[in-house]
Amino acid sequence: MERLKQQMEFIAEVDKLKSIVRQTYIADGSRKENDSEHSWHMALMCVLLSEYANEEIDVLKTVTMVLIHDIVEIDAGDTYAYDETGHLDKREREEKAADRIFGLLPEDQAKKMRKLWDEFEEVSTPEAKFAAAIDRVQPILLNDDAGGVSWSEHGVTLSQILKRNEHTSEGSEVLWEFCKRLIHKNVEKGTIKDA
Amino acid sequence: MERLKQQMEFIAEVDKLKSIVRQTYIADGSRKENDSEHSWHMALMCVLLSEYANEEIDVLKTVTMVLIHDIVEIDAGDTYAYDETGHLDKREREEKAADRIFGLLPEDQAKKMRKLWDEFEEVSTPEAKFAAAIDRVQPILLNDDAGGVSWSEHGVTLSQILKRNEHTSEGSEVLWEFCKRLIHKNVEKGTIKDA
Repeated sequence: MERLKQQMEFIAEVDKLKSIVRQTYIADGSRKENDSEHSWHMALMCVLLSEYANEEIDVLKTVTMVLIHDIVEIDAGDTYAYDETGHLDKREREEKAADRIFGLLPEDQAKKMRKLWDEFEEVSTPEAKFAAAIDRVQPILLNDDAGGVSWSEHGVTLSQILKRNEHTSEGSEVLWEFCKRLIHKNVEKGTIKDA
Repeated sequence: MERLKQQMEFIAEVDKLKSIVRQTYIADGSRKENDSEHSWHMALMCVLLSEYANEEIDVLKTVTMVLIHDIVEIDAGDTYAYDETGHLDKREREEKAADRIFGLLPEDQAKKMRKLWDEFEEVSTPEAKFAAAIDRVQPILLNDDAGGVSWSEHGVTLSQILKRNEHTSEGSEVLWEFCKRLIHKNVEKGTIKDA
């Protein structure tokens, strides 16, 4: 029963992900989405779009990675993609959070989940590359659906987006091609600054 | 490209799940949770708690089932567990919704996802039984964490909860044992009516 108690404690703790707000708006533009919604959307995308991964992937492993990838933000907060100062100590803040939060689980699962999160952060396996691509593609879809408001609100430029997405095609060339069209459409509309 | 366009249309459409509010409060009691948050939480629970399924389950299949199980509520709305009138035409409303929403996908995926949703609704396979159990366990955990507010708000009785959970142990006896303790704790506290 001690094992189950630890698992349930973790499950209760990660409920806080529902209160970590991102900078991306949901598709109807009515409000910003939170990390748990983003993770659900990404998990479903992994299942439906795995055929576009450049290399063959273990879908369950990728989905699990995606379900937990933002859990560290419970302690470390969401660092906006284009916040340069926030990125300076991001890694350190998130490592500490991973120690504490995954540490709530029974040892075997704590190790397994921590390893999966490290793998996601290192972006070197086919699964991590695809998960990272989906992590970029999902907000591009939403930003486009919501009329580009998150980009225009922050004055985001085309070169910032291209830099942010320099590795997206390593996870999926097909999905990156799809996104490039949406990005260029938004440059033409003026919601992304052509700079 | 037509295939990917259909998949992306589905992915954009199901974003609406983020706006379908349930009667369960998030763990800190600050607001009600929505279907996408509930689905994310359930998916993670399936991964972490699969060892407690009565029968061996295919975890990816179960997680996929959970990720899509509430998608029909985009058209049919959330029917509260203890709303008897709402349950009269629930099945009909949800079947229509499934036709429309899964129908947005390319034919092979539409069939696969619809089959999975039907399987979830029929609750006859080990995966569906475990998913159904998690669908009951997750709100019990949250209700307990949030101080029982959702139960007391609706004047929910012990016998209603036991009736609602008459099949939970068929998915997982261990998890149902865990929940029974939480339920009886809340009966003692008075947040669940002893009737």
